[in-house]
Amino acid sequence: MSTWNVEYLKPTLLQPVPSDIAISRAQPPKDIEKVAAEIGIHPDELDLYGRKKAKVSLDILDRLTEVRNGKYVVVAGITPTPLGEGKSTTTIGLVQALGAHLHKNVFACVRQPSQGPTFGIKGGAAGGGYSQVIPMEEFNLHLTGDIHAITAANNLLAAAIDARMFHESTQATEALFNRLAPKNKQGKGVRPLSEIQLRRLDRLGIPRVTDAEHLSEEQRVSFARLNIDPATITWNRVMDTNDRFLRKIEIGLGPNEKGHTRTTQFDITVASELMAILALTTSLADMQKRIARIVIGSDKTGNPVTADDIGVTDALTVLMRDTVRPNLMQTLEGTPVFVHAGPFANIAHGQSSILADKVALKLVGQDGFVITEAGFGADIGMEKFFNIKCRYSGLQPSAVVLVATVRALKMHGGGPAVVAGAPLKHEYLDENIPLVEGGCDSNLRKQIDNANKFGIPVVVCVNKFATDTDKELELVCSKAKSYGAFDAVVSEHWSQGGAGAVALAKSLVKATEGPAKEFKFLYDLELSLEEKIATIAKEIYGADGIELSAEAKEKLERYTRQGFSKLPICMAKTHLSLSSDPTKKGAPTGFTLPIRDVRASVGAGFIYPLVGEMTTMPGLNTRPCFYDITIDPVTEIIDGLF
Amino acid sequence: MSTWNVEYLKPTLLQPVPSDIAISRAQPPKDIEKVAAEIGIHPDELDLYGRKKAKVSLDILDRLTEVRNGKYVVVAGITPTPLGEGKSTTTIGLVQALGAHLHKNVFACVRQPSQGPTFGIKGGAAGGGYSQVIPMEEFNLHLTGDIHAITAANNLLAAAIDARMFHESTQATEALFNRLAPKNKQGKGVRPLSEIQLRRLDRLGIPRVTDAEHLSEEQRVSFARLNIDPATITWNRVMDTNDRFLRKIEIGLGPNEKGHTRTTQFDITVASELMAILALTTSLADMQKRIARIVIGSDKTGNPVTADDIGVTDALTVLMRDTVRPNLMQTLEGTPVFVHAGPFANIAHGQSSILADKVALKLVGQDGFVITEAGFGADIGMEKFFNIKCRYSGLQPSAVVLVATVRALKMHGGGPAVVAGAPLKHEYLDENIPLVEGGCDSNLRKQIDNANKFGIPVVVCVNKFATDTDKELELVCSKAKSYGAFDAVVSEHWSQGGAGAVALAKSLVKATEGPAKEFKFLYDLELSLEEKIATIAKEIYGADGIELSAEAKEKLERYTRQGFSKLPICMAKTHLSLSSDPTKKGAPTGFTLPIRDVRASVGAGFIYPLVGEMTTMPGLNTRPCFYDITIDPVTEIIDGLF
Repeated sequence: MSTWNVEYLKPTLLQPVPSDIAISRAQPPKDIEKVAAEIGIHPDELDLYGRKKAKVSLDILDRLTEVRNGKYVVVAGITPTPLGEGKSTTTIGLVQALGAHLHKNVFACVRQPSQGPTFGIKGGAAGGGYSQVIPMEEFNLHLTGDIHAITAANNLLAAAIDARMFHESTQATEALFNRLAPKNKQGKGVRPLSEIQLRRLDRLGIPRVTDAEHLSEEQRVSFARLNIDPATITWNRVMDTNDRFLRKIEIGLGPNEKGHTRTTQFDITVASELMAILALTTSLADMQKRIARIVIGSDKTGNPVTADDIGVTDALTVLMRDTVRPNLMQTLEGTPVFVHAGPFANIAHGQSSILADKVALKLVGQDGFVITEAGFGADIGMEKFFNIKCRYSGLQPSAVVLVATVRALKMHGGGPAVVAGAPLKHEYLDENIPLVEGGCDSNLRKQIDNANKFGIPVVVCVNKFATDTDKELELVCSKAKSYGAFDAVVSEHWSQGGAGAVALAKSLVKATEGPAKEFKFLYDLELSLEEKIATIAKEIYGADGIELSAEAKEKLERYTRQGFSKLPICMAKTHLSLSSDPTKKGAPTGFTLPIRDVRASVGAGFIYPLVGEMTTMPGLNTRPCFYDITIDPVTEIIDGLF
Repeated sequence: MSTWNVEYLKPTLLQPVPSDIAISRAQPPKDIEKVAAEIGIHPDELDLYGRKKAKVSLDILDRLTEVRNGKYVVVAGITPTPLGEGKSTTTIGLVQALGAHLHKNVFACVRQPSQGPTFGIKGGAAGGGYSQVIPMEEFNLHLTGDIHAITAANNLLAAAIDARMFHESTQATEALFNRLAPKNKQGKGVRPLSEIQLRRLDRLGIPRVTDAEHLSEEQRVSFARLNIDPATITWNRVMDTNDRFLRKIEIGLGPNEKGHTRTTQFDITVASELMAILALTTSLADMQKRIARIVIGSDKTGNPVTADDIGVTDALTVLMRDTVRPNLMQTLEGTPVFVHAGPFANIAHGQSSILADKVALKLVGQDGFVITEAGFGADIGMEKFFNIKCRYSGLQPSAVVLVATVRALKMHGGGPAVVAGAPLKHEYLDENIPLVEGGCDSNLRKQIDNANKFGIPVVVCVNKFATDTDKELELVCSKAKSYGAFDAVVSEHWSQGGAGAVALAKSLVKATEGPAKEFKFLYDLELSLEEKIATIAKEIYGADGIELSAEAKEKLERYTRQGFSKLPICMAKTHLSLSSDPTKKGAPTGFTLPIRDVRASVGAGFIYPLVGEMTTMPGLNTRPCFYDITIDPVTEIIDGLF
């Protein structure tokens, strides 16, 4: 039984299920101060942001250091249709079941959504139906400002890079050096360097000086000239807006920039390496170190240039200071949720933060549960959860919940293409056992196999839709168990809330009982970058091997030479197929995975091979959902968010 | 005596005066919840953002509707040197004196600083010395996210403009119309338009329809095609970062944008019209209306295209919903401060928000004081405060505090140029009566005259520097009084805090006693735009008249034709001279004011003539102050912010 004293909320379940925002609005949330008190957070560990959101202090980790962690469960999915199969909804429904119905201490840890798509084609997201984070407006808009802080920090570094190149190219070395190391106004001509400048001396192998005047001519040149090769710059500007016209831009066209133009791009903020850093960091001190290590490009002799060389490490850390504290909200049934970090699931690892998970694992205690979600299909999300996130956190996962739908399985079994916006074909609306079976025997089987490679029990959750027949659902469950799932359960949390996920919750509890399973990584970090990439491609995707483009080969050599070969791999691959071809469903075999290019997020701590083109800036369609968004300026009621 | 129950803080005054951040850190602030309670804000009117900042509900205006407003005082300055003469410091010192020393109910209302310059050349700002808003880090970094919300809203509109032009140019009218007015999935083929689309029909003079199918071919064309003339677009993207390489950029270079490139620019966020709207709005409903009215450019037939035409009015209002509530902080001596809005002082009106002033005037009550600051010199800041801000608020000002320094007066009296970063010439360090006298007889005299034109008493505050001599200070005071100031007082709040401004505070109290003075605007809104501009130039700047460029003339005609001629004028002129030439000090005469161009902020509600070039995006120098900013990741102590 729960050691907490949570007042569960009891939303009134209606049929047909109303819109997400109508459900959210119909259930008044508790004040977040009350939620925090219920789960043992002390008042001095809580910073309120309005009444329904709060930041939680990392001091909890010290206070509860002797408490044993709760069970740590990741929700992943089979390869989805473009419509999504309900991982977030399952995550929330499952914690509602474990908390409000089985009375366990339980936390959901989820990603903060990007604000851009909320006003584009997607609308808001906070779970769905009777399994949601509330209030949904707060969840979708600004939250406590973490994404905005990342935008500010990311763009300060970007502005500093271009300004530095400009000043280097328009000033003689002496003038540049004199400006970088000015005379101290108080100190009668002494020219002290700041700590971040001294660290640059360290990296250059020049002994620290108390007066820059003592540097030799040659030392002054190495100190003052970063000599960034513009062609190698990988640090882009970001914005949390869907702005397709910023995908490729030319900057520096103003007369004062004297012709120093450059072609670059904006990404959406959640694609910033700083977001991946926030998600993977384990403390403010660790974040500061990761920021210092960010590689923004190379100099003209091929050495990495870092954020520390640009001089912004602490300025960026200052801007991001508050982001390290997880954001507390609640589910529709009043159980606690951390909403913290939301990196891309292709060019980054697509997971909410390590810090939120760590704090939650202490708060729930050893008999409690922390349920977190891995972005994209399990071949990407779960693999990165284990090989990147668990590696950096040192946390031991207890189970995988693998979400499947009859709809997606039919697609994998050979059903017609599922297209967002277009009506579903009849195969998806009527019973069709052969298609379901085909999907089970291919994609579901492979995803279960993959999970089992990490040594962790898999509970398959069949997320039930109204059109699914009992026969179809039963088939999925029996197939899943025959392929090595610990259990497989039909779940109706979308229409029933936590009550609809009780069977799933019970099965999960069973799967995590007894001694901890032996968790193992898929690959050793000591392998070469190419070997690590090939291991993922073969073991997880079912490829015969990989094929490196010339560019990819060159990059692997460069990163190895620069000392980054011990980093884990973060594959940037489509989530719509186990292969690199989104049209290939099921469990493709007999293919070679093409690696088009390779990039490095050295600060976050991974190398990311690009399998095909990745769009890092969404657009706005002809009729974006902002046409339907309304706000009553008196009641402040927002409509149309989804 | 104060009807509040404020616990005043008593910072320990040190000599020499330590750095601003050292002073700020040495004085622990009260919890903001306590400050709010002390001044009669109810718990349900307060939304905390951490422990030292809170947003305050506008419901206070309803609750206290019967309370008579306090005295409303604006702090302005003579034409400053490039170093600034201490208006913000005076504002804070004055409220500390009125509150902690004279025990009046008193509020300071100040602008939120832009974050960009904090990491550039300027460092943070929160007053200075022993007259500051604390904690200064919170004041300078993110605050409660208002500027970030403006960035998000501004850029959603910008992205929507380019996306709309793209979709119009790549789609036949039928396809475009079908996408803008899709069939309702539930409604069996009915094509309902959303409210914002119906408002477009209203503006086009087309009767509203329940089914877009009923629109004629011709109506479909007018409805679907905004036909924006790209050359007329005045809506730029914004970023709260000093990024000079974004001053002029080419966008849309990506292959998917199919050659629809456009040259545009980024401004710093505080230059966004949305910031001016936030500063001038009187409620969320009013803000929504102002956003709807924003003119982003003209169509190809010369009609204005608005944010409402683009479809984003409510989406922008949703993003800015929380920004209308003023942000509560405190001074170094524990008196309340609202930090709310911070528009540019040239292309906008440079004032903190009307809403903060209104709430503060009710909270202090009829015997209390609200002190607010006008950006730039009084010829710009005070003139806009009266003619724009007070016009929109309907509030009656009680007095002007005009800040002068011996340094600036010497410059106006013929002293050598004062250059930021360069050591001051000896004229500024040694006694020099003739220079001081020259400055009094020119600039100080003119600025006092200007204030008196509005019918409001002027108290001159001589902000004392260590190098000023008694003879110099006495001269300024006697001169000021001889030119029609109600009083003139030397003030030492920078080194002494509120205790140093007690004489100033007492004099101000006296100036506001007795019946209210007869406040009058400088010009009537019914005058033509050209007449209004000429009135300001002649009456306030001392010009003989104005000279309109061909472009300016064309714009005045366009805006008049478009129906915007009743708007007040917001001059975009240098603050370093009463004239348009920043090198002309004193009180220049015999000049004609050149109007280079004219722009409109129709949503904010003013026309802004451009006198010379205005930079709306600052840059980073060779050694920006981020080199000196540090944070201890364990204690979270920030250093180097100023």
